[in-house]
Amino acid sequence: MENFIYSIPTTAYFGRGQITILGETIKTHGGSKVLLAYGGGSIKKNGIYAAILEQFGKAGLAHVELSGIKPNPRVESVEEGIDMYRTNGCDFILGVGGGSTLDACKAIAAGVKYDGPVSDLFVGETSGATISAAAPLATVLTMAGTGSEMDMGGVITVGADHKKKVIMHPLLNPKFSILDPEYTFTVPEYHSMAGVADVLCHLMEQYFTPDVAAKVQDRMNEGVMKAVLEDAPKILVNPKDYDARANIMWASSMALAGFQFLLGKPSPTFPLHGMGHELSSLYDMTHGVTLALLTPAWMRHTMSAAPEHLPLFARFARNVFDVREEVDAKAAEEGVRRLEEFYATIKMPANLRQAGVTEEDLETLAGKAVENGNLGILTSIGKNEALQIMRAAF
Amino acid sequence: MENFIYSIPTTAYFGRGQITILGETIKTHGGSKVLLAYGGGSIKKNGIYAAILEQFGKAGLAHVELSGIKPNPRVESVEEGIDMYRTNGCDFILGVGGGSTLDACKAIAAGVKYDGPVSDLFVGETSGATISAAAPLATVLTMAGTGSEMDMGGVITVGADHKKKVIMHPLLNPKFSILDPEYTFTVPEYHSMAGVADVLCHLMEQYFTPDVAAKVQDRMNEGVMKAVLEDAPKILVNPKDYDARANIMWASSMALAGFQFLLGKPSPTFPLHGMGHELSSLYDMTHGVTLALLTPAWMRHTMSAAPEHLPLFARFARNVFDVREEVDAKAAEEGVRRLEEFYATIKMPANLRQAGVTEEDLETLAGKAVENGNLGILTSIGKNEALQIMRAAF
Repeated sequence: MENFIYSIPTTAYFGRGQITILGETIKTHGGSKVLLAYGGGSIKKNGIYAAILEQFGKAGLAHVELSGIKPNPRVESVEEGIDMYRTNGCDFILGVGGGSTLDACKAIAAGVKYDGPVSDLFVGETSGATISAAAPLATVLTMAGTGSEMDMGGVITVGADHKKKVIMHPLLNPKFSILDPEYTFTVPEYHSMAGVADVLCHLMEQYFTPDVAAKVQDRMNEGVMKAVLEDAPKILVNPKDYDARANIMWASSMALAGFQFLLGKPSPTFPLHGMGHELSSLYDMTHGVTLALLTPAWMRHTMSAAPEHLPLFARFARNVFDVREEVDAKAAEEGVRRLEEFYATIKMPANLRQAGVTEEDLETLAGKAVENGNLGILTSIGKNEALQIMRAAF
Repeated sequence: MENFIYSIPTTAYFGRGQITILGETIKTHGGSKVLLAYGGGSIKKNGIYAAILEQFGKAGLAHVELSGIKPNPRVESVEEGIDMYRTNGCDFILGVGGGSTLDACKAIAAGVKYDGPVSDLFVGETSGATISAAAPLATVLTMAGTGSEMDMGGVITVGADHKKKVIMHPLLNPKFSILDPEYTFTVPEYHSMAGVADVLCHLMEQYFTPDVAAKVQDRMNEGVMKAVLEDAPKILVNPKDYDARANIMWASSMALAGFQFLLGKPSPTFPLHGMGHELSSLYDMTHGVTLALLTPAWMRHTMSAAPEHLPLFARFARNVFDVREEVDAKAAEEGVRRLEEFYATIKMPANLRQAGVTEEDLETLAGKAVENGNLGILTSIGKNEALQIMRAAF
C-alpha cells in the first residue's frame, strides 16, 4: 500500500427533510448573501426551490439567482456566476442540482477569488495560476451520479469544440451537502440510470489499478458496487422507492468522498472518463451513458493487452458479481458479460452506434481523448488503443 | 434507511514516514506547547519517541510529558494530565500509543476546558455538565484496534470497582492522526490480535442491527471485515508484513470513522462492549480479548431469542465468510462456527474459563453489565440474558 492522506471536509446531511438545516448551517459558515445556482428550473416544479426560499427566509438570508446552468456546463455560465457573485456582494454559493450545476458552482467558487479569467485555473493550463482561496460552497443534490456533492473537482466545457476542462482543489469541497433521496424521485428514468452508470464507473476507475494490497479500500469499493447493482433496478420498477434511491445517492457520495477507494493505490488517470468526455463533447451525450458504452470494451482491451492484470478482473467478477469460475481468464470475461447484462437492465444503449455515434468520428474522438497524453495505468492508451476500444464499443 | 449526519473531522496521514508532517501540522492547528502523552515507554525503545522529539525540535515546539498511562486508563491519569496541561500553559495535546493513551487524551482535552471534575463529563453522569470546548488533539497510533484515532469517544476507568465510563463528543475527534503501519511492527502478538478482535467487534456491533436496507453501509462494512479476516493471520506469520499491518491499521480507523457503518441504522447500544468492559474491569483483561470471548455466545443467544433476525446472521455468514448454505439457520450457525475458527487462528482464548474467569463471578459480571439499563437492540439483554451469554461463553 502506498502512503496517503485521508480527508473528507464535506459534512453530509442525509435523509428526508434535511433541508431544514440549510439556513442556519449557511450562517455557521459565514454566509449572509447567497448566490443560488440551479439548472433548468425543475426545482420550481418539484417544490425544492420553494423549500429553499422558505429556509432562506427563516434564517434571514438574502440571495441572488443564477439559473439555467446546462448539462455539460460551459465556462460562460461560470463567468456569469462569477460576475453575479461579485456584483451583488455575495459571500456564499449554494448549488442545487446534479453534477453539472455543482461542477459549475465549484468553478465559480474558485473564480470569484481569482483576479483573472477563471480558465487560468483549469488543470493543465499554462497560466501558472493556482487556486489559493475559494468562496464557501454548499450543495443540495437533486440527481445522484457525479459525486460532485462530496468531492473537490468539477468538469467545465470550453470553446467552440466543447473541450472538457477539469477544475480541482481541496478548497472546492462543499462545506456541506444536503442529500435527500426524495429529491431524486422525479428524476427521469434515463437520467437516473445514467447517474447509476456514472457512480459505478467512479468505483471501477478506482478499482482497476495495479494491485498494491490495499484490501480495505478494494473490499469497501466492491461493497458499494454490489449495493449499486442490487438497488438500481428497483428504481426502474418504482422511481419512489426511498431505500433504493437512498442507497444510490449514498453510493454516489461515497464513491468520490476523499477518493477514499483510491487512497494508497497508484493513480489510474481515469481513462474511461477521458474517453467518455469526448463523446459528451461531440454529441452532447449524457456523461454516465458514455461511460457505460465504453467500459466493457475497455475491460476486454485491458485484459487482452495486459494479461498480467487478469487476476484483477477475475477478482472483480468473483467479488462483485459472485462469479464462481476458477480460471481467471474465464472469470474475468464472465464479469464483463455480467456488467453488460447490468447495463442492459438499466437500459443503457447497447453500443456507440445505437447511441448515435457516427463511425467516421471515431478517429477524431480517439485523437482528442489522448490530446493531453496517454490515458490509463494498467495499460497505456494512446490514439491507436483508444480507437480500438471505441471500435469495439461501436 | 434512517436520516443521518456524516462528518469525519479527522485527517489521517497514513503510511511510512508520515511523522515528518507532525510539527508543522500541530502549528497549523495553533499548537506551540504540547502535552505529549504516552504509555509504558515502549516508544523510547522503538524510536518513535526520538522521531517525535526531532519533529518538535524542527518546528520549534515546546512540550511537557505525561507518561505511564496504563491499559484501561484511570481517571487519575486523566486528572494528572489536566493539571499538567494547565500548569504548563499547554495549547495542544499529542497522544502517542494505542486506545488507552488516546482515550485518556480525549478526556484530558475535554477536562482542561471544563471548570470542575472531569468525571462530570462522562456519559450518564447526573452533573448535567456538557462538553462545550476541548483542547486540540492529535494522535500517533502505535497499536491498531480501538479506533480511537478516528472517533470522538473514549473509555475511562473510575473508582475502586474499576467502573468503565464513556466520554464522547464531536469536539474530541482528533484534528489529525499519524498512522504509520511500521509503528505497529513491534506490538506483541497477543496485543496485535486482541486489536484485531476489537476492530472486528466494532464492525459487527454496527452490522448486527435491525435491517433498514442501509446496503451501502452494510456492504462496505462486510468488505472491511473480509479484509481483516484475510490479513490478520499474516501478521502471525510475519509481524513486519507491511501491507497486512497497513490493512489492519486502516480497518481499525475505518471501523469507527464517523461511525460510518452505523449511519442510517438504529443504534445498537454496543452490547458486546457493555459486557466486555465488565470483564476488563474485574480481571484487567485486554479489551479486544473480552469481545472475542463473548461474541459467538452473543450471536447464538440472539439467533435463538430473536429468530426473526436469523436472515441478518445468515447474510453475515454468506457475505463475510462465503458460506454457501441456503437455509438461513444453518448458514447463520456456520457463520458463528467460522468466526470461532478465526478467533482460534488468531489465538484468542477459547472460553472465559481459559481466560481466567471464575464461574462464581459470572452473576456479578452480568449484573454490572446492565447496571445502567438493558443492552442490545436485536434483543433486550437484561441480567438474566447477560448471564446466559456469559455462561455459554464460559
